[in-house]
Amino acid sequence: MDASEDILRKAMAEKQSALEAQGNAVRMMKTTGATKQEIDAAVEALNGLKLEKASIERQLQAAISGSEGSLNREAFRQAVVNTLERRLFYIPSFKIYRGVAGLYDYGPPGCAVKSNVLAFWRQHFVLEENMLEVDCPCVTPEVVLKASGHVEKFTDLMVKDEKTGTCYRADHLLKDFCNEKLQKDLSITPEKAAELKRVLAVLDDLSAEELGSKIKEYDITAPDTKNPLSDPYPFNLMFQTSIGPSGVSPGYMRPETAQGIFVNFKDLYYYNGNKLPFAAAQIGQAFRNEISPRQGLLRVREFTLAEIEHFVDPENKAHPKFSEVANLEFLMFPREEQMSGHSAKRIPLGEAVSRGIVNNETLGYFIGRVYLFLTRLGIDKNRLRFRQHLANEMAHYAADCWDAEIECSYGWIECVGIADRSAYDLRAHSEKSGVPLVAQEKFPEPREVEKLVINPVKKDLGLAFKGNQRMVVEALEAMKEKEALEMKYNLESKGEMEFYVCTLEKEVTIKKNMVTISREIKKEHQRVFTPSVIEPSFGIGRIIFCLFEHSFYLRPSKAGDEQLNVFRFPPLVAPIKCTVFPLVQNQKYEEVSKVISQSLTSAGISHKIDITGTSIGKRYARTDELGVPFAITVDSTSSATIRERDSKDQIRVNVEEAATVVKDVTDGRRTWEDVWSTFPHHSSGSADE
Amino acid sequence: MDASEDILRKAMAEKQSALEAQGNAVRMMKTTGATKQEIDAAVEALNGLKLEKASIERQLQAAISGSEGSLNREAFRQAVVNTLERRLFYIPSFKIYRGVAGLYDYGPPGCAVKSNVLAFWRQHFVLEENMLEVDCPCVTPEVVLKASGHVEKFTDLMVKDEKTGTCYRADHLLKDFCNEKLQKDLSITPEKAAELKRVLAVLDDLSAEELGSKIKEYDITAPDTKNPLSDPYPFNLMFQTSIGPSGVSPGYMRPETAQGIFVNFKDLYYYNGNKLPFAAAQIGQAFRNEISPRQGLLRVREFTLAEIEHFVDPENKAHPKFSEVANLEFLMFPREEQMSGHSAKRIPLGEAVSRGIVNNETLGYFIGRVYLFLTRLGIDKNRLRFRQHLANEMAHYAADCWDAEIECSYGWIECVGIADRSAYDLRAHSEKSGVPLVAQEKFPEPREVEKLVINPVKKDLGLAFKGNQRMVVEALEAMKEKEALEMKYNLESKGEMEFYVCTLEKEVTIKKNMVTISREIKKEHQRVFTPSVIEPSFGIGRIIFCLFEHSFYLRPSKAGDEQLNVFRFPPLVAPIKCTVFPLVQNQKYEEVSKVISQSLTSAGISHKIDITGTSIGKRYARTDELGVPFAITVDSTSSATIRERDSKDQIRVNVEEAATVVKDVTDGRRTWEDVWSTFPHHSSGSADE
Repeated sequence: MDASEDILRKAMAEKQSALEAQGNAVRMMKTTGATKQEIDAAVEALNGLKLEKASIERQLQAAISGSEGSLNREAFRQAVVNTLERRLFYIPSFKIYRGVAGLYDYGPPGCAVKSNVLAFWRQHFVLEENMLEVDCPCVTPEVVLKASGHVEKFTDLMVKDEKTGTCYRADHLLKDFCNEKLQKDLSITPEKAAELKRVLAVLDDLSAEELGSKIKEYDITAPDTKNPLSDPYPFNLMFQTSIGPSGVSPGYMRPETAQGIFVNFKDLYYYNGNKLPFAAAQIGQAFRNEISPRQGLLRVREFTLAEIEHFVDPENKAHPKFSEVANLEFLMFPREEQMSGHSAKRIPLGEAVSRGIVNNETLGYFIGRVYLFLTRLGIDKNRLRFRQHLANEMAHYAADCWDAEIECSYGWIECVGIADRSAYDLRAHSEKSGVPLVAQEKFPEPREVEKLVINPVKKDLGLAFKGNQRMVVEALEAMKEKEALEMKYNLESKGEMEFYVCTLEKEVTIKKNMVTISREIKKEHQRVFTPSVIEPSFGIGRIIFCLFEHSFYLRPSKAGDEQLNVFRFPPLVAPIKCTVFPLVQNQKYEEVSKVISQSLTSAGISHKIDITGTSIGKRYARTDELGVPFAITVDSTSSATIRERDSKDQIRVNVEEAATVVKDVTDGRRTWEDVWSTFPHHSSGSADE
Repeated sequence: MDASEDILRKAMAEKQSALEAQGNAVRMMKTTGATKQEIDAAVEALNGLKLEKASIERQLQAAISGSEGSLNREAFRQAVVNTLERRLFYIPSFKIYRGVAGLYDYGPPGCAVKSNVLAFWRQHFVLEENMLEVDCPCVTPEVVLKASGHVEKFTDLMVKDEKTGTCYRADHLLKDFCNEKLQKDLSITPEKAAELKRVLAVLDDLSAEELGSKIKEYDITAPDTKNPLSDPYPFNLMFQTSIGPSGVSPGYMRPETAQGIFVNFKDLYYYNGNKLPFAAAQIGQAFRNEISPRQGLLRVREFTLAEIEHFVDPENKAHPKFSEVANLEFLMFPREEQMSGHSAKRIPLGEAVSRGIVNNETLGYFIGRVYLFLTRLGIDKNRLRFRQHLANEMAHYAADCWDAEIECSYGWIECVGIADRSAYDLRAHSEKSGVPLVAQEKFPEPREVEKLVINPVKKDLGLAFKGNQRMVVEALEAMKEKEALEMKYNLESKGEMEFYVCTLEKEVTIKKNMVTISREIKKEHQRVFTPSVIEPSFGIGRIIFCLFEHSFYLRPSKAGDEQLNVFRFPPLVAPIKCTVFPLVQNQKYEEVSKVISQSLTSAGISHKIDITGTSIGKRYARTDELGVPFAITVDSTSSATIRERDSKDQIRVNVEEAATVVKDVTDGRRTWEDVWSTFPHHSSGSADE
């Protein structure tokens, strides 16, 4: 597609110059008094060129929009979002006060989906792996977020409208400018188009200065007012507050839940019997004060994170259960494939680890578990890929990092990040707090280790340095191995050397008699080390939004006169598992419905009774639009039908067994196919949709 | 107790004067040269008085401390809190940075208890009553909290150390002063003691001025420095922040979850098919920036609230399911009993409602449901009471309010508030937002209503007031019924009257021809009204803390040489439902343990394997201290024992059925008694505790 776009842009530019030349020729003819015949012929040629240009324009437009077309994507999203808002899956927060950008409420069905997703997350990760779940506050004192680097680095670059003060994300303005040019300005040259694409590709890496100079170069102004913009400067994305009444203890609303786990490492390690590996987990709110939230439900100012911190010996990242996921095969998008312009491909997970594409087994194990988690929720496995971070995307300390990306109407969206963060976080908090966050490995037998031993000869040092002796001794003892070996060599060969003592801020002369440096064999009983942490971090709201899009479809009503909305949620996720309808308004049927409802309640199955007189077809449509997988229709006092949402198949059951059948199928103890082959089928009459 | 305290204080005062008089007498004798015999006798009398005073002092001390003694309570609390912190139920947040007052983490077992409590809350309230659960952000724009009154009124009175700037809650300092005097200063007169007690009783009602003058009167200084204190002034308890980058949109971290529901009333009412009554519910974090948090886990700066807003027609607060709770009988503490100095007493709930002690059935229904909720969690029903708010405690708009108070080592603590808040909240948001938050009742038949109709005669008003006509017309149309009737009377009797038009800021003369005021019969098809809201609001952290105290007990180890800690959590609440032990370290037993563990995982039963070589007694003790109700011990390859925590009884089961038995008992499908009578008993050998 890129190639054809390039050719078309070239053709456009050529056609444009031809057009201009022909236009000039026509004008020239008119002034120089050419014959009408000559002029008519030239005008006809001009019109021909215009038609050809229009045709190229159409082709170029189509090439830019892609084959499906971004308009289709937006129309699809609009259909989903309309249904979600109308059925209160989501509500813009504080709507009666005209809302706040980037804040959304989950209404009743959305809230139920969310709590189902979180319950399954607990079952699939916390319970299955015996993780230590913790629950820490959102309010966090500054010292913690200084140690983690958030106070300094958790920023986006912002520009201000110089007259009104309105703020914009600098990269967004540049991105919009480039996209707009590329999509709407068909007259730009292939070279210009290539340049704009290059800018888009490196957008995330641009410094404040580079962004600023591009904004100046392209003459980008404030979108609403066309006023000039300030230079870009960093804006910290944390919501700031003050803890306590004095105003002297700054705090922030946490930007992630992970820090609460890191600062508790010591206690959690103890709780785990001082054994590695183990994982801690936390579900909770996180906050990012976005400069100008866009992309609706995907970029919000407050959201639920579910994070796992799996602590592991950096020298042994094998995982005992890796074999359980090794045979999974799904779309992976390794760094090399991205750099060489290929697309994601299916790779068996075992192979990805053994070939070193994925750094280690533990990281691979979690990639596999995340794949299972997402697809069991109902994410389409063909629209899910694991993309490895490029070298420039990854923090300098990270060993490897993969994002689970889900394709939705906004494109491929990062929904889960799975990173091997090495020892960075624990080291940062160890240093800032002075509390060692380390693990020990006791050796079964003491090990002999060769160690460099530095012994200052205090008597001689005292004579030489008097009051400064202590500083010199400390500096000698603090030498790194390489430095000490160099000193040993120098003292042995030259008898003395100059040595910089930083606490004295000067060099002193160390002589051979003042220090002995030797290699000794020592016995060690244990190894003390900072564990590595492997962190799968789940953006729950993003997963849910993608799940909504992947679950949504339209089907014609029975009469064929309208398109009905359906969410094909698996029972695990469905906000309500079952509806109960009396077929017609009738006291007996309503009594039976209530009895079934009571059995469902005591079986813990969320459900809804609909006793309105609306036609059964309309009631099915209402329930399909909420993604309710089963509907029990009471059409006699002794039996009822159970309808499955997607197949619309119905079986007939006794009233007493209705709740049990629904419970078995929603709990996953039986499949619908199994139930379908056990019970008599009910062929839907005219009343049914 | 109060009476004896009073008598003892009087006796103390008398003894003190007698002592002083006798002391003076002795001194006088010595200066006037009395005989040694005389002086000795007087000194002996003096010593006798001293002894008597010491005895009264001891009695008074005992009377003040109470019969159990506050020391016992504190020792008990310390034992519980030590166990909780050691086993990581709780961790002071950010401990490695020396923590932040009023912020706590839930560690693994605490987090599990919390999520069990919340899951049961959802089952008991949301699912059972078909409530509409929502999930709104914590970040809240100022306009919402202005409407709710929090920006203006959610304050505590604060004083500052005038030299260091350290802040204190004014009422706490006064309270501490009074308590300290009453408990430690045995020399104060009964009158003084009565005065201090009066101050304590009205502490919550004191204005800033009154608090300030008491602090001055008692010469109270800053506790740490003894510096003088500032006058008290209000400090808003909300954490403030700023939404977006501009700095011009103030926001707060929500102090309660209720407002998120109120602002969504219109959508939720529509979702419920425009029918009343219905309830919405929300679980989430709330924030209060306490001035100086005390009482450990009970007064914290961030906590989980679970709130229900039940919307109901103010003219019909009957509840269809009230009969299901009417026969419950528990401790209630109505307003009258409190005023007349009586204590709480057991009243059947049905009687409390029918006698009008509880305002209405819906309020009564929720009181009953809260009672069931708390006692099923394991709260001791003898240490739970429902206390009605006194008139001065209740907001002016509230119709009635009851607190579920649980007795713990800090005294009786409010854990759930159940208030009939009338139409206050919806009205406040209607007014501020301009969006009507109302319900309609459609009449089966149109009703005839007499209505006052005001018709300005525009022609005559135009002639009289020209350009001011519009303002006069608006003022006439806006008249209240009483005002209009008065005008009608005046115009009919006198032909004209003076009328104040506030938009003109002056009086105008209205004549008989300018307006007609009449009563007309109109047909109405529906009634539009603001629903009342009944709000049960649960402080989850407080409930959990009380539950920990009510569940904790000590029992001697088998050897009798130490006291072991046990939490008697019901299975519903227990953080881990089951442990699995191989009796001795042995590969076969470990294999069997793993098989059982896998069945437990797939049954969704949280559990822990302990394969350490520690004695089985020690392993039971460890597990009891976490409140784990069942322990499976593998002592053969075909069968295992299951031990119940509190009775220490053991049954023998086949390996295959172990997980099922535990699941049945933890899910409440079978009782332990039932299981005990079904399976063979196992008499514990010497290995067992």
